[in-house]
Amino acid sequence: MEWALIDLLLKRLHRPESAQTLPLGPGHDSAILRPRAGHDLVVCHDVLNAGVHFPEHTAPFDIGWKALAVNLSDLAASGASPRWMTLGLSLPAAEPRWLERFADGMRALLHTLPADTRPNLIGGDTTKGPLSIAVQLLGEVPQGQGLSRAGARPGDSIWLTGPPGDAAAALHGLQHGLPLAEPLLAALNRPRPPLLAGLQLRAHASACIDLSDGLLADLGHILQASGCGATLHLPALPASPLLAAFCQRFGLDRHKLQLTGGDDYQLCFTLPPGAESGLNDLLARCHRVGLIEAEPGLRLRNDNGQVETPDLDRPGYQHFT
Amino acid sequence: MEWALIDLLLKRLHRPESAQTLPLGPGHDSAILRPRAGHDLVVCHDVLNAGVHFPEHTAPFDIGWKALAVNLSDLAASGASPRWMTLGLSLPAAEPRWLERFADGMRALLHTLPADTRPNLIGGDTTKGPLSIAVQLLGEVPQGQGLSRAGARPGDSIWLTGPPGDAAAALHGLQHGLPLAEPLLAALNRPRPPLLAGLQLRAHASACIDLSDGLLADLGHILQASGCGATLHLPALPASPLLAAFCQRFGLDRHKLQLTGGDDYQLCFTLPPGAESGLNDLLARCHRVGLIEAEPGLRLRNDNGQVETPDLDRPGYQHFT
Repeated sequence: MEWALIDLLLKRLHRPESAQTLPLGPGHDSAILRPRAGHDLVVCHDVLNAGVHFPEHTAPFDIGWKALAVNLSDLAASGASPRWMTLGLSLPAAEPRWLERFADGMRALLHTLPADTRPNLIGGDTTKGPLSIAVQLLGEVPQGQGLSRAGARPGDSIWLTGPPGDAAAALHGLQHGLPLAEPLLAALNRPRPPLLAGLQLRAHASACIDLSDGLLADLGHILQASGCGATLHLPALPASPLLAAFCQRFGLDRHKLQLTGGDDYQLCFTLPPGAESGLNDLLARCHRVGLIEAEPGLRLRNDNGQVETPDLDRPGYQHFT
Repeated sequence: MEWALIDLLLKRLHRPESAQTLPLGPGHDSAILRPRAGHDLVVCHDVLNAGVHFPEHTAPFDIGWKALAVNLSDLAASGASPRWMTLGLSLPAAEPRWLERFADGMRALLHTLPADTRPNLIGGDTTKGPLSIAVQLLGEVPQGQGLSRAGARPGDSIWLTGPPGDAAAALHGLQHGLPLAEPLLAALNRPRPPLLAGLQLRAHASACIDLSDGLLADLGHILQASGCGATLHLPALPASPLLAAFCQRFGLDRHKLQLTGGDDYQLCFTLPPGAESGLNDLLARCHRVGLIEAEPGLRLRNDNGQVETPDLDRPGYQHFT
């Protein structure tokens, strides 16, 4: 039984690879891989559980998509090019149909990526247990060029690869039975981490993080790791037209959703003065939202020029309600 | 909360490492590591679930020990030297005491190993959910020297690093409420994978696998991957004195436990003719138990010279009952 399930996964998520890069592929207790000379290896390992990270009856296609997406997002924030994947799957029952759809969801996300950045499934474990999906990705980055949340300096500009808040709006809509436009739901269930942006940012960005906990919390991680503060310009915060319409229709605080919602899987990165000139194409699609400063703490400058200071230590930031 | 738990794990399982080998350590979404030049990377990813791989109320110390042991065993079978570890932990509640004991169990096993073969915890994920432990290990092996289950050839001898069956006896004892000597229980709860044997076997063994499913099943994996058959000499099968006494006292079939029990975490390896001369020290502690043959299938030669053929396709081999 176990082998049939693994075979089903491999058919969808493994591709043959040269023995020069994958000396020992799937079907063994370990896989053996050969990173490119002159490259560092980037590893992430995130777990998604039913009832915690997604509702119990989420479609398996969406679970597969999202489990891969949150890990791809971690690699994107490191500037890494994905290479290999192992899966640790706990399944309540051996249901091939469920697993097919799960793997289809992963594959669909993979096929949104250039072929040479699709991680290849090379191993893992499939076992009985409450539904839980552990995804481990390995990526490569030229030696010393990996991005991290540390490294931002006063004077650096703060950027986002895309508008935050859509996933938070979708979650709010689901929880309150509100009608949702399909793109908002897709932002929650089928995020598309900006992997190529991460690749372009290496050797340019001073710090980078992916937005999983919410902009305030994640920018806070950059500030803590970098030992500095920042001011965000709220009027500069990009919002999708659907988010703006949703918030207006249901009387929601757009900025609160955008600052604290989480699950965005956009990148938040900082650029030293002068770095912008080498990134014109990328930055034309990104949004400059603030400035790194020496003074500790995170400040928000609102529409009328006033500055407010959110309490980052409070779980579930409530300042803008 | 989550960070306090992670910090607790890191205090016990992470050690500072040079930026030359670990450019980015724990505390980020990804870790960045630099394998040694001229080395392949070996990756394994096994999951253990409560109620499936261990009884619900197993001591957390033993769960930590075993979750690490089964993955170390995978690396041992590849001839890899462990370097790094990531954990994907799902915990029903944030209980620091439980997690401390869990990490203590992992650390206790690590301290049975030479310092330069202890994997360093560098990342992962801690989340709410039914108890589930995903361990991912990364090891190194000189390029092209990784062992696998493929490669056995007719005429190769078959060896075990130690006597199988103790863990199966302990499981039987627990399930039937029989009194158990401490070393039998330790074989089940605190296995010690023969990591150093794996290191010595590279460049010598033609095939290698760890005994997790039981000797018949795991040797069967070698035969299938290598495209050959074998005869096992049952009288040559080593048994611990405690196992022999346990089987005699409770009227159990020792060979059945040894052939089908599983959870042994010894290595089963094959050596080409002539390879023994380079491995005298190791082989003095190992046991030659059979011969690889061209004829497909696995044969058992019993005490009186008769040959029997177990049915490997039947789940839970029953031939010797």
